[in-house]
Amino acid sequence: MKNLKLASRAAAEQTVISVGDVAFGRDFVVMAGPCSVESEAQTLAAACAVKAAGADILRGGAFKPRTSPYSFQGLGLQGLKILDKARRETGLPIVTEVLDPRDVSWVAEFADILQIGTRNMQNFALLKEVGMSRRPVLLKRGMFSTLEEWLNCAEYILSEGNPDVILCERGIRTFENYTRNTLDLSAVPAIKELTHLPIVIDPTHSTGRLSLIGPMSLAAVASGADGLLIEVHHDPKTALCDADQALTPDLFETLMRQLRPLHAFMRSIAD
Amino acid sequence: MKNLKLASRAAAEQTVISVGDVAFGRDFVVMAGPCSVESEAQTLAAACAVKAAGADILRGGAFKPRTSPYSFQGLGLQGLKILDKARRETGLPIVTEVLDPRDVSWVAEFADILQIGTRNMQNFALLKEVGMSRRPVLLKRGMFSTLEEWLNCAEYILSEGNPDVILCERGIRTFENYTRNTLDLSAVPAIKELTHLPIVIDPTHSTGRLSLIGPMSLAAVASGADGLLIEVHHDPKTALCDADQALTPDLFETLMRQLRPLHAFMRSIAD
Amino acid sequence: MKNLKLASRAAAEQTVISVGDVAFGRDFVVMAGPCSVESEAQTLAAACAVKAAGADILRGGAFKPRTSPYSFQGLGLQGLKILDKARRETGLPIVTEVLDPRDVSWVAEFADILQIGTRNMQNFALLKEVGMSRRPVLLKRGMFSTLEEWLNCAEYILSEGNPDVILCERGIRTFENYTRNTLDLSAVPAIKELTHLPIVIDPTHSTGRLSLIGPMSLAAVASGADGLLIEVHHDPKTALCDADQALTPDLFETLMRQLRPLHAFMRSIAD
Amino acid sequence: MKNLKLASRAAAEQTVISVGDVAFGRDFVVMAGPCSVESEAQTLAAACAVKAAGADILRGGAFKPRTSPYSFQGLGLQGLKILDKARRETGLPIVTEVLDPRDVSWVAEFADILQIGTRNMQNFALLKEVGMSRRPVLLKRGMFSTLEEWLNCAEYILSEGNPDVILCERGIRTFENYTRNTLDLSAVPAIKELTHLPIVIDPTHSTGRLSLIGPMSLAAVASGADGLLIEVHHDPKTALCDADQALTPDLFETLMRQLRPLHAFMRSIAD
Repeated sequence: MKNLKLASRAAAEQTVISVGDVAFGRDFVVMAGPCSVESEAQTLAAACAVKAAGADILRGGAFKPRTSPYSFQGLGLQGLKILDKARRETGLPIVTEVLDPRDVSWVAEFADILQIGTRNMQNFALLKEVGMSRRPVLLKRGMFSTLEEWLNCAEYILSEGNPDVILCERGIRTFENYTRNTLDLSAVPAIKELTHLPIVIDPTHSTGRLSLIGPMSLAAVASGADGLLIEVHHDPKTALCDADQALTPDLFETLMRQLRPLHAFMRSIAD
Repeated sequence: MKNLKLASRAAAEQTVISVGDVAFGRDFVVMAGPCSVESEAQTLAAACAVKAAGADILRGGAFKPRTSPYSFQGLGLQGLKILDKARRETGLPIVTEVLDPRDVSWVAEFADILQIGTRNMQNFALLKEVGMSRRPVLLKRGMFSTLEEWLNCAEYILSEGNPDVILCERGIRTFENYTRNTLDLSAVPAIKELTHLPIVIDPTHSTGRLSLIGPMSLAAVASGADGLLIEVHHDPKTALCDADQALTPDLFETLMRQLRPLHAFMRSIAD
Repeated sequence: MKNLKLASRAAAEQTVISVGDVAFGRDFVVMAGPCSVESEAQTLAAACAVKAAGADILRGGAFKPRTSPYSFQGLGLQGLKILDKARRETGLPIVTEVLDPRDVSWVAEFADILQIGTRNMQNFALLKEVGMSRRPVLLKRGMFSTLEEWLNCAEYILSEGNPDVILCERGIRTFENYTRNTLDLSAVPAIKELTHLPIVIDPTHSTGRLSLIGPMSLAAVASGADGLLIEVHHDPKTALCDADQALTPDLFETLMRQLRPLHAFMRSIAD
Repeated sequence: MKNLKLASRAAAEQTVISVGDVAFGRDFVVMAGPCSVESEAQTLAAACAVKAAGADILRGGAFKPRTSPYSFQGLGLQGLKILDKARRETGLPIVTEVLDPRDVSWVAEFADILQIGTRNMQNFALLKEVGMSRRPVLLKRGMFSTLEEWLNCAEYILSEGNPDVILCERGIRTFENYTRNTLDLSAVPAIKELTHLPIVIDPTHSTGRLSLIGPMSLAAVASGADGLLIEVHHDPKTALCDADQALTPDLFETLMRQLRPLHAFMRSIAD
């Protein structure tokens, strides 16, 4: 891959990024939680549910990048405080999105992992800013991006001094419209031959369909992914965004009972 | 899905299609062999190798749809006779492509399964002709096709009286160029909720990269696919087409030792 | 472009294909008429209207490639007879689609130009058959095809001995869904530097929106296209296919009053 | 279009945005100049050349969003000072890109029009910031964006109080690789029926090929576009970015001699 230095496969052994009790690049890490933080009650309910089902990290958005300026934009600082409370109650580390370079330093006070969303993958000002942070960065692939462009965005972060980048494939845009996007699962083995950085899969935004999340999560494990980022809402029908695609705690628990054994099995058959 | 009658999910229970000793829709069926039949020696070598490794069906092209008129177009009748000999020697049923409606009836004398290639998915004259055949049809998804269009093409075949259609996802065309196409693995669970027809995955043409075939085959099993269609060549460097993406017999055997146990494991964790 | 011999830019001067009173590659040729031949009255009404407005050639489908097997599939032979009558009454040559290699020789008795549709661009059996015909061939670009693949399909026809191929850009498939497809107008100057074959634009299927047909037809002239293929129906609301995108005779006449002067103007400012 | 209020067609008459001596939405506005400001000599040479050829506005980047962090990133403040000098010498207003919300207020001191690049189309923090500026904003379409998403981004700017948004179509990403992107010229008439905001075309980045820029610029005029954004470099071979696609002053002058008469002609044939 042209121009890659720090992110190239040859530059390092497998990157291992410890967050709480788990490590990306070593363990299979499950991040789960609501799309957006809507209230303390909703966030705590989801946090407790995903914790009980065995999730490793709580996801939840305080800043929401929305297509329309008139859609719910997130609770901001208040949302971060709620996430902080959920962390204290459950012990789960927090991954949350940051949208504005001016917010990076103070959001990093609340977040264990800073998420860069798909629309901001090539927001170079933001990449440089999180590159100067000490928090691990979850870098979503642009829905329009080649693997090469994606890795160059990781390079932006690495070249500012932050070595802890977790790549997240979340679907690319194609002509198919039965699914919200097309999950490019072949990105997993491709990324593993192109870089030493861990890669996780977002089965929720890539498929946009509840019924596909389970099978695609299992397929992600089998493809060699390092983890998952899944939306779970205690009452999806009332969710302020992505109401159609969040798992209920029950569905999530059922899935978790398959994911961990499958991951162990895959290790057992690896050559 | 608009217009679907016979192919719709509600129209029937899971379709089970017996070919030789296996059944699509019941077993996990592995079809393997060379992209094209080049010679008797090459075909028999590949046939014996894939048989030994546990493949269920032999694939091999006697008619090759090639981008350029000046590329190798296949051996035609001679190729079919070679496939016939390979079947007699190994006991493996044959899946082979047909390109022209005028060839369907006599190619069906040699083939156990008739393959419709991606470029011919909407070749309606050809679909109607195989719909009048008694052979099962492997219908590849157009590299440009929505699930709805694909299922309507299956409907063309079913509506002519042939109930035995096996769908084959082989990658769709996107902007990504690291892979030859983008394997849309989410098509597997999507198809399972839209129709009763079995679906298999072609990890070779979808990825176009040797290193991705193994992981994507395993992911296909985990996603719930009913089988695989894989290129195996006894000496890929000398292959007349797709030289870069055919598995050697050794690599195929290694993969088979993971596929069958994984399939059994997936059954064991299914709820 | 790899593999091109007869179709390559270097192989010949501008190809000029005479049909009736006009010549592709020399004149700006307007082909207009209904999507499908539905009845004698409908076809004659459209034929007379487009003749009166200044069209050069009548288009109309007797064989319709439809997504669903249950949609209207065209009148077949009866439709060709109606087109023949329309030709006799108006003097307009006929362009009509052929879908099956078995039909080429007898359809060529009725058609002045044989059309290969977008779904059949890589139907190599059909390409070879029209390559053996003496009729000019209008080769639509696959909605999924690169320019290189398209020109290789032209090469299939040329290499069988038929030098008269007219290329037709009709939109490619992208994520955009406001339009039916995305008209790739840059294909016009690109094709002009890659081959000596004429190229026309289909503004109807590419946009799928009545309001965009006029502006895109004018843009096609300005881009250097050799002609247009436009749907005109005497009563679009009753059309059996593509009811939403056919121009009325009035709209077509208005457009024609702009097209011819614009073409003359473009010639006057060419260097 | 869902959610649109201020940007919707029904919300206002044609928006007219005066910059210097011209007005978007009333005149055909040509913005030309180098991709990036490299030096005072280079910028002044380009500025004088495009002024002499009849351009209305000078384009030039001081902040360059580059795929790789190791590519030339622009001269920043020094580049803006050079643009300011070019404005004083030629009288041409300046359009220049801004990448970071923290830079908007001071870049607006130098720029007559603030450009939002394709990668930042959904950088909502940046959109809100330019929405609070008093400068007109040139909003490029994301290479991955639907018209609806694009207009919602315009809505972000309008809803912050800035009514002066100029839309710029610059090509979308498809499978075609002969061109850099696929210019979606049908966006021009589509946008005209969806909003009152002016729309211009970037024929340089959309095609990425020198030979296609002229024909696509003419086609843009014929489609009804309100202007063009073209790269011109006094010595393209030495350019620090996009060396292959910048017009020389001579080629630009030749094009300008066709553009203005064509625009006048299009007005004369409009009904």
